Amino acid sequence: MPESVADLGEFGLIGAVTARYPQGSGVILGPGDDAAVIAAPDGRMVVTTDMLVEGRHFRRDWSSAYDVGRKAAAQNLSDVAAMGARPTAVTVAMGAPKDLDSAWALELADGLRDECEQVGASVIGGDTVSAETIILAVSAFGDLDGREPVLRSGARPGDVLAVCGRLGWAEAGLRVLSRGFTSPRVLVQAHRRPEVPYDAGPEAADVGASAMCDVSDGLLADAGHIAECSGVRISVHSGSLEIPEPMREVGAALGEDPLQWVLAGGDDNALLATFPAELRLPERWRVIGSVVEGAGVDVDGEPHVGRAGHTHFS
Amino acid sequence: MPESVADLGEFGLIGAVTARYPQGSGVILGPGDDAAVIAAPDGRMVVTTDMLVEGRHFRRDWSSAYDVGRKAAAQNLSDVAAMGARPTAVTVAMGAPKDLDSAWALELADGLRDECEQVGASVIGGDTVSAETIILAVSAFGDLDGREPVLRSGARPGDVLAVCGRLGWAEAGLRVLSRGFTSPRVLVQAHRRPEVPYDAGPEAADVGASAMCDVSDGLLADAGHIAECSGVRISVHSGSLEIPEPMREVGAALGEDPLQWVLAGGDDNALLATFPAELRLPERWRVIGSVVEGAGVDVDGEPHVGRAGHTHFS
Repeated sequence: MPESVADLGEFGLIGAVTARYPQGSGVILGPGDDAAVIAAPDGRMVVTTDMLVEGRHFRRDWSSAYDVGRKAAAQNLSDVAAMGARPTAVTVAMGAPKDLDSAWALELADGLRDECEQVGASVIGGDTVSAETIILAVSAFGDLDGREPVLRSGARPGDVLAVCGRLGWAEAGLRVLSRGFTSPRVLVQAHRRPEVPYDAGPEAADVGASAMCDVSDGLLADAGHIAECSGVRISVHSGSLEIPEPMREVGAALGEDPLQWVLAGGDDNALLATFPAELRLPERWRVIGSVVEGAGVDVDGEPHVGRAGHTHFS
Repeated sequence: MPESVADLGEFGLIGAVTARYPQGSGVILGPGDDAAVIAAPDGRMVVTTDMLVEGRHFRRDWSSAYDVGRKAAAQNLSDVAAMGARPTAVTVAMGAPKDLDSAWALELADGLRDECEQVGASVIGGDTVSAETIILAVSAFGDLDGREPVLRSGARPGDVLAVCGRLGWAEAGLRVLSRGFTSPRVLVQAHRRPEVPYDAGPEAADVGASAMCDVSDGLLADAGHIAECSGVRISVHSGSLEIPEPMREVGAALGEDPLQWVLAGGDDNALLATFPAELRLPERWRVIGSVVEGAGVDVDGEPHVGRAGHTHFS
């Protein structure tokens, strides 16, 4: 029988997990004491927290522990990047059933570590408790390196709306899995593990982005957050949205419009920003809309019909 | 019918909770964006995370939402204090059943806020998701104000062991509640809401504490952590441990030895530290033992018989 987390014990599990986390140069004191200590050279610290619940944010039969770890880290690291900051560290608290295979917990740790490694961040601590289902609470921290944080509230009429990263891929992968299929693999994999262009966040801040957020709820929902916080209207130009071939194929096979996944699908953690129109955007950023006077979000000037995104408790 | 968190919706709940959190001067950007930004004037940041699960760490029939909030904050703020740091901010992620009365969530927020207010810390953000039971993940942050962090690993033979705060009170309160009683109220209340001498942490660091941690697992268990990390033996002197009158009475009534609660009871979040013997300790710190060559923990020179403390997954 595989060893469970209960067999390993709380301190055994923490020890085994901690051994998997290398500590970068920004870590002054890593795991093992009452608290960790990290460098904050800028004198300010960016802080974000997300919670992931099994069955709601991931399924063990659809995603490996490694992928869940990658995704849990990505979701938080992208929030840090969306402020224009460089992620430096992550903490992870896990609730898990006593009979959880300890290999699952260790692979999760590997996934967290590898996603953090992409940006040079370290997993500096956490907690493990017994719970009915697997619940992860991840916090991520970042340094602004002297930049001003890019808020959701800075968009101004006349700005362009631009995106860097994927839209709709994770949603398409979820639709595929929900129908019992496992291909196209590129979409399924996008659901399991987002590919986030982390350094596009500080890059956008450096060129002068006026507002930014990550696309976790869906393009229209997150554009709506910028519109609301900035007191503007955002118009998305559907013709500028890429619908990659595998998504078209799946749409045709399932009888669904893939544009809806691009507009309303969450969990790709693309970065969405507005820029003054005269700025030359970095190469990876694609203009997909404009900021105008008013309120709300429209698609090609028309109110959107359909789901804007997902929320919890609804 | 009372309004549930689902009636309020995710954004409604976040808005109502956030309105209850005043933001202190150390908060550069509070809740509402992808991440918060806090001041880190020292250039280093102390970070800790704990998870609390309903039924395991608290019961809704034994503790009010307000008390759960106080306790959840206290547990993390005391970890920050135990590093010799001043707590500055807290984040809170909550998983909750959809039918949870929204008043419960708001009272929880009040408790978190009031505990943080004691130390001048602000609740700067969080997350809410739907879950089977109530799960709270709290992270706390602190500033060292130029101090070196006090680790668990600095105890040396010849040092004295000292404590500031309560020992055994929360455990005694738990025993009372477990037997179906609600008095002595002072003990029940100690279980519901620890009274933590937060400023004793920086104070101990300032006078030269060699090692420190908070007593969350129990005196012997946490002394054991210091002993193990420092490579020393810690001897607890039972005669120097206070057993307050209400605890004696309950011990007699339940046929239990209250000294065991003092030695092994957790959740009071007292601060436990070692100091070089020549130092004059601040008034609130009581010497309760000594550091000697060797390994492990003993009580009056004898190995302890009985439970040392509690762990999870066991």
